[in-house]
Amino acid sequence: MTTLSLIGIGTGNPDHLTLQAIREINAADLVLIPRKGEGKADLAELRRAILREVLTNPATLVAEFDLPVRDEAVADYRERVDGWHDAIAGVWEAAMGSPRPARVALLVWGDPSLYDSTLRIAARLSPAPDLRVIPGITSLQALTAAHAIPLNTIGGPVTITTGRQLRDHGWPEGAETLAVMLDAGGAFMAIPSEGVTIWWGAYVGMAEEIVLAGPLAEVSERILATRAEARARHGWIMDIYLLRRM
Amino acid sequence: MTTLSLIGIGTGNPDHLTLQAIREINAADLVLIPRKGEGKADLAELRRAILREVLTNPATLVAEFDLPVRDEAVADYRERVDGWHDAIAGVWEAAMGSPRPARVALLVWGDPSLYDSTLRIAARLSPAPDLRVIPGITSLQALTAAHAIPLNTIGGPVTITTGRQLRDHGWPEGAETLAVMLDAGGAFMAIPSEGVTIWWGAYVGMAEEIVLAGPLAEVSERILATRAEARARHGWIMDIYLLRRM
Repeated sequence: MTTLSLIGIGTGNPDHLTLQAIREINAADLVLIPRKGEGKADLAELRRAILREVLTNPATLVAEFDLPVRDEAVADYRERVDGWHDAIAGVWEAAMGSPRPARVALLVWGDPSLYDSTLRIAARLSPAPDLRVIPGITSLQALTAAHAIPLNTIGGPVTITTGRQLRDHGWPEGAETLAVMLDAGGAFMAIPSEGVTIWWGAYVGMAEEIVLAGPLAEVSERILATRAEARARHGWIMDIYLLRRM
Repeated sequence: MTTLSLIGIGTGNPDHLTLQAIREINAADLVLIPRKGEGKADLAELRRAILREVLTNPATLVAEFDLPVRDEAVADYRERVDGWHDAIAGVWEAAMGSPRPARVALLVWGDPSLYDSTLRIAARLSPAPDLRVIPGITSLQALTAAHAIPLNTIGGPVTITTGRQLRDHGWPEGAETLAVMLDAGGAFMAIPSEGVTIWWGAYVGMAEEIVLAGPLAEVSERILATRAEARARHGWIMDIYLLRRM
């Protein structure tokens, strides 16, 4: 029986690693590192840097593999993602080898539970491994930490959603605080800005971190311009924001 | 100018500490430890154990202080909480001494951004310190890790709410996945169970962790019984759950 550990590594700051993550990495026989497929961010190098810093078990092997690309010829979104996840599971199988090592680890950006496909891909493996999940700091936590703000109002609910949901469905009924992730850019322009405050961040937790905050009506254009400039300069961007109706 | 660091320490597993948290603790001149006021859980002892394990700077002082209790004679909830937070800020001031040390640290259960009052109390300090927030693993992350499940469906939103909100307002309009925190007990009994799956956990991330999952209609009574038994045995309980409508 193989144990597959999905280890949250935080958002690009190696100091986000937990002691649990470090122990789990060192307990692995094999650590798998994907080389491509996460946009232009050099996340493979981040993972290598983390291993250089914390991997002290000389018996742990590291295997890099190339992630397949999504087949954009498949028109249906769910079908396209399903096919892609199947292909990734196949690549994992190959990288693990046969027979599989007893303990395999994958380093997951953020936390394996939040807008991440690793658990869904792992569910495709046959025979099914014993899954272990090690939580990691998410970009949402790095955002609220950077702004030094609470996520919720006192006793109030918070909705975590995506840029696509906000763009397609608007402000969710009854929501007070919205955390928006995976926005391809500026979905906040699709909602009425009246009474809304935004706390925005890009590359949160990383050395490149940029944060802006203020009444949405006043800062939205500046956020768009800052985002475009940063994206051009770095070649990639990952941003996230909190919206609150006062 | 004093820097006050609010350091997330995770949910009771010392291995939840991040390298950033450990560095921040060791950069402090003074670490404040509250002795009471968080129910019957011996969280002061947890904090002491964490410091024994990771505090290596001999120049860092540790000061314990007694948290004031809420004045239950104040009828209005917000007013009662406000007064309590004022009182805690006063106790922090006294514990920091005068002049304040340059770097003061407070260890916060979970993450300082999520259903935690530390940021609101810090905002009452005068003069205002420079605030630093170090994210920590939340009970929500420990819950999804324990069940090895994603928080969200593919691209779907998630609402984080409280037991009180669920009890008073029912299932939020349009919500698909609900994460319920701070439930005094069994708020899930207040909603129609048809089509709802629950993933429940108590003491998540700790050695005492208990988890249960299944269709709400089938497991709700067992969760209530397990919760009551665990609470009686430990003298306190902290639980959390995820509800999803399929």
